[in-house]
Amino acid sequence: MALPSDIEIARAAKKLPIQGIGAKLGIPEADLLPYGHDKAKVGQGFIASLRGRPDGKLILVTAINPTPAGEGKTTTTVGLGDGLNRIGKRAVVCIREASLGPNFGMKGGAAGGGMAQIVPMEEMNLHFTGDFHAITSAHNLLAAMIDNHIYWGNTLDMDARRIVWRRVMDMNDRALRDVVTSLGGVSNGYPRQTGFDITVASEVMAILCLARDLDDLERRLGDIVVAYTSAKTPVTARDLKADGAMTVLLKDAMQPNLVQTLENNPAFVHGGPFANIAHGCNSVIATTTALKLGEYVVTEAGFGADLGAEKFFDIKCRKAGLRPAAAVIVATVRAMKMNGGVAKADLGAENVAAVQAGCPNLGRHIANVKGFGVPVVVAINHFTTDTEAEVQAVKDYVAAQGAEAILCKHWAQGSAGIEDLARKVVDLAESGVADFAPLYPDDMPLFAKIETIAKRIYHAGAVVADKAVLDQLKVWEAAGYGALPVCIAKTQYSFTTDPTVRGAPVGHTIPLREVRLSAGAGFVVAICGEIMTMPGLPRVPSAEVIRLNADGDVEGLF
Amino acid sequence: MALPSDIEIARAAKKLPIQGIGAKLGIPEADLLPYGHDKAKVGQGFIASLRGRPDGKLILVTAINPTPAGEGKTTTTVGLGDGLNRIGKRAVVCIREASLGPNFGMKGGAAGGGMAQIVPMEEMNLHFTGDFHAITSAHNLLAAMIDNHIYWGNTLDMDARRIVWRRVMDMNDRALRDVVTSLGGVSNGYPRQTGFDITVASEVMAILCLARDLDDLERRLGDIVVAYTSAKTPVTARDLKADGAMTVLLKDAMQPNLVQTLENNPAFVHGGPFANIAHGCNSVIATTTALKLGEYVVTEAGFGADLGAEKFFDIKCRKAGLRPAAAVIVATVRAMKMNGGVAKADLGAENVAAVQAGCPNLGRHIANVKGFGVPVVVAINHFTTDTEAEVQAVKDYVAAQGAEAILCKHWAQGSAGIEDLARKVVDLAESGVADFAPLYPDDMPLFAKIETIAKRIYHAGAVVADKAVLDQLKVWEAAGYGALPVCIAKTQYSFTTDPTVRGAPVGHTIPLREVRLSAGAGFVVAICGEIMTMPGLPRVPSAEVIRLNADGDVEGLF
Repeated sequence: MALPSDIEIARAAKKLPIQGIGAKLGIPEADLLPYGHDKAKVGQGFIASLRGRPDGKLILVTAINPTPAGEGKTTTTVGLGDGLNRIGKRAVVCIREASLGPNFGMKGGAAGGGMAQIVPMEEMNLHFTGDFHAITSAHNLLAAMIDNHIYWGNTLDMDARRIVWRRVMDMNDRALRDVVTSLGGVSNGYPRQTGFDITVASEVMAILCLARDLDDLERRLGDIVVAYTSAKTPVTARDLKADGAMTVLLKDAMQPNLVQTLENNPAFVHGGPFANIAHGCNSVIATTTALKLGEYVVTEAGFGADLGAEKFFDIKCRKAGLRPAAAVIVATVRAMKMNGGVAKADLGAENVAAVQAGCPNLGRHIANVKGFGVPVVVAINHFTTDTEAEVQAVKDYVAAQGAEAILCKHWAQGSAGIEDLARKVVDLAESGVADFAPLYPDDMPLFAKIETIAKRIYHAGAVVADKAVLDQLKVWEAAGYGALPVCIAKTQYSFTTDPTVRGAPVGHTIPLREVRLSAGAGFVVAICGEIMTMPGLPRVPSAEVIRLNADGDVEGLF
Repeated sequence: MALPSDIEIARAAKKLPIQGIGAKLGIPEADLLPYGHDKAKVGQGFIASLRGRPDGKLILVTAINPTPAGEGKTTTTVGLGDGLNRIGKRAVVCIREASLGPNFGMKGGAAGGGMAQIVPMEEMNLHFTGDFHAITSAHNLLAAMIDNHIYWGNTLDMDARRIVWRRVMDMNDRALRDVVTSLGGVSNGYPRQTGFDITVASEVMAILCLARDLDDLERRLGDIVVAYTSAKTPVTARDLKADGAMTVLLKDAMQPNLVQTLENNPAFVHGGPFANIAHGCNSVIATTTALKLGEYVVTEAGFGADLGAEKFFDIKCRKAGLRPAAAVIVATVRAMKMNGGVAKADLGAENVAAVQAGCPNLGRHIANVKGFGVPVVVAINHFTTDTEAEVQAVKDYVAAQGAEAILCKHWAQGSAGIEDLARKVVDLAESGVADFAPLYPDDMPLFAKIETIAKRIYHAGAVVADKAVLDQLKVWEAAGYGALPVCIAKTQYSFTTDPTVRGAPVGHTIPLREVRLSAGAGFVVAICGEIMTMPGLPRVPSAEVIRLNADGDVEGLF
């Protein structure tokens, strides 16, 4: 199978003018704010006018634990969207935006792959429509207002040692992780230690992705806890009167971005929160807008189903009132083999026994997702090296779990290769069997929520935490934050906190190292491992070879 | 005269779709990259296709030294553009973009005022088309690559004490002026002291504004000197292989932004370099593109004619091969009175003697601009408190200088109020008397260039500098930078370095405190006073009252 590279396919795409894509969804030209000829934001007024319309059916695409073999979750999300359109359903794809900074370290990525991609690929890896820049500005305005407030007398009595709001930049820059600011004398303020995170790690990013509309955005921005007073009471962005100006900076960024698939079907690409210290889903406003415009909305969540789908259900769906109709779990024969103990170099050889040995990882995810009341189908994302016997082994295993696994060839064939999955998804969604419920109730204590996820989803034996961590949770409960859901930050490679443990382990211990409050986003982050919020550049960053060629195309980015 | 406020007028503007504005200049829709319905970038391919077309006539609008009375230079630039269109000339206005950060300290500003404005005003004060964000990204990528290079072994042997490239943010944030980075241990690099400037102070901004095209942009970015080795030889962005990726980040930002005046005439708003440590003019590419598309191009330069026009002529015109056909010097009766010793509170009362006493400031600027071989007309920007006798006093004074002063009422009346000036500008431009030449030749030594400006333009008696400063200039001359023009950073309020000295002083001393090399932009900065490159927020920043109202309009920004 000699397919051209993703970027070659993307550059050769015959794109429709974005007004033509909008027309497929009934969006008038005047309500599309174009950014060039192939990107547009959907106007707030138009979105507001959709209230009262019935919702389409929401389909989640999730996956097994990621392995170096690759699963193709986004490729399947895009392919399923095209497949649903092919069989006559008006379907919209909703995925996350890419972060600019990391592209200058390692190569940027396609949105999807092969014949199942979203375009324009280059622009989605560069400034796109400026959303992340707006988030950077809003975040850093709040930071500047904190230090400015202290400079002019600190009437809010913020404890300079307890300022928890850092700054952000959309750049891989390790030198900014840990800095001392306000040096240089009286006119520059009071020196203190702080640092920068990458923009996607900003709570403002998570807020933008969870806000229902501009009013909800402003309220959530105001709720951000930026510091504690000397009496340890929280100081919010509202106390600093920063919420209004932050909202103004984000008013355009809140409008979903419309682009298209290679097959000229509509896709919203909007928001991109971290999948560890945040919930890792595209924006609520894009998803809810798409549900008003499409019969089907296909979206995905970050990492595997243990982290991604759980947060999608327990944070995004819970808070936005979304009720998913079906879930697709993406698996590959190669990844099953790796879960069965095969090294990456040996993946080319047929090994049915290893496939069978690896399948329990998939089985755990099937059971977990079903546990939320959402019916499941497994998509086997076809690789050309897969043998018929290996594919059959996966199908047989999944059938034994009470689900169906369907071989999908969208990477090579586009929508023509994924019709069977599309039909199955329609069957599941229209069967009405979905009966979504989150895993835990709002009023469960915070630590019990963490334990519930660890035991029910990861099949851990226990969660252990220092007293200081447990005390912090109790302080937040006393301060009124106890009804928030929890957001687990943990390795995505394993049900345990050890990234090398594949398969479906049971009885392990989850160490809860640290907790953080994201009061504006509306969750408590439970950190169960090392979390890097500001990456660095590698020894030879890809920036060294990125340049414009004579045709004006970007070389070296992909 | 009860005119509504600038923002009320701007919001009530009947804007044409931006494609309609492009059509006035013969730009096909396909070559306009829209940003919403009222902003667009002009495609690089279209710009390249214009080569070989004859150029229109370039008109500079400059001013007396700014006073608290206000001069209205941008208002007159916009008004003159509308006036030229009114009398049947295809005219394009070219001005600078506004910086985002300062709007959250003090109120944002209109582009022009009264009936002579450019719209959309709100967006031009917020993210606009993202140019400044792109500059921030490109600048900070280079900074990250410097620290990353040191982290991975520093094969270029950069002296960590001699890294001259700081970081930037488009925010008023005094806490970032002076920082220590790379704290926190081995994985974060080598701690060093550095800081942040506001984005408009970035050399990348100056480069973007002086580059002729993308190739020239990449070459100039490569020329940036970021550090010196332990042997004190310059290390450039090209040595770090950052130039290509920076160019990619700036490829859209290099395309001029097309918007419109209240009278639906075309305006390019593009680039916004500091007028002190940089040259303070809109981009060369906007100006040269406008010259291919319009019969007349009206542009302005930062501050008064002593700083702004001199840099426009000696840096922008010299380097871009521009030959201005005429210059308008904006003055007001009120400003003449302040130069004549009247306090701001007393400006309401007629005082012909004070007007006459203040006129020598205007006379000095007339003579200076004529010295560049450019014919001059004075625009008296009318205020309703001006008396006939005061206006006549200015006219008489200017006539005695061999020029003409024309009363202009564009603020209140739009183009109808500025027809006389438009006709006079056409007369001057078509008379062919312009014979532009820069003030000094390229091959003059750097210090002699500074002395030439000080003596010929400021009428200073001498320039004094420490030996270290003079030695630095000689080092740069030896390193091949001697042919660069100089960029004076000095108070804009006076011909001296004392901002309180108005009028037309002679024989003063100019202290040259510091020099900086902007090798990519292509000038040596001569700092003759305190220069702030990162502002702070005031005690009550305007951010505290900025918010969206129920109509989605931005409140508190203006």
